[in-house]
Amino acid sequence: MLIKKIEHIAIAVRNLDEAIKLYENIFGLKCYLIEEVNEQKVKTAFFKIGEVKIELLESTGTGGPVEKFIEKRGEGIHHIAFAVDDVNSSLKELEANGIQLIDKSKRAGAEEFDIAFINPKSTHGVLTELCEKKSTGK
Amino acid sequence: MLIKKIEHIAIAVRNLDEAIKLYENIFGLKCYLIEEVNEQKVKTAFFKIGEVKIELLESTGTGGPVEKFIEKRGEGIHHIAFAVDDVNSSLKELEANGIQLIDKSKRAGAEEFDIAFINPKSTHGVLTELCEKKSTGK
Repeated sequence: MLIKKIEHIAIAVRNLDEAIKLYENIFGLKCYLIEEVNEQKVKTAFFKIGEVKIELLESTGTGGPVEKFIEKRGEGIHHIAFAVDDVNSSLKELEANGIQLIDKSKRAGAEEFDIAFINPKSTHGVLTELCEKKSTGK
Repeated sequence: MLIKKIEHIAIAVRNLDEAIKLYENIFGLKCYLIEEVNEQKVKTAFFKIGEVKIELLESTGTGGPVEKFIEKRGEGIHHIAFAVDDVNSSLKELEANGIQLIDKSKRAGAEEFDIAFINPKSTHGVLTELCEKKSTGK
């Protein structure tokens, strides 16, 4: 499996507007996109630092994964995402190596990426996402 | 404050050797350095993905920050580090903006970096490190 780069680091927050203020006014970054992913019950704000994105995640509905995460352990880093060329073939390779998956095949994520999650039980507690650009497969 | 890039993402693990196997054999990365930071009671393994490093942290002593972290919430992402030109002036700027600091001035970290931590209470639960290269200040 070839990881091309860290695509993003996702941070679960209670209040997106307040968190955006921190990243814009204090850390000097610029929010370039706010997007809702209804399937995941989240509203997301995107920032770029070098080649990596920061994604802030606020829950938009009861029972969503970000709400559950915050209930369990408070605000904080939710997952990291690795950019790969082909999510499905990477998932097959991981599974063949005994890694537990959350998603058996890729599905739609934010920002026109196809994504899949690896079970943190297999990755030392780190919820890990694989992602590939939808349009070109890269 | 100008963040130049994400310098590293640090992950607290119980067993460094096992975690290195995951990142080398499954994720295809190469551990290029193992270093002990006695002051922090940690042993660290470094990997590079694009411009960002992954640092795996194993506790080496009772009462250290990584041991406490794992006791409280298990293995997982411990902190993220932003590269800045000047840690001390960034700390002053943050403090002037009401951000709570853990370190009031820079101190020695791994890999010849000077570092300082920001209190996660001020950063939506994300333990955030600032770092600068010791030798050149960059």
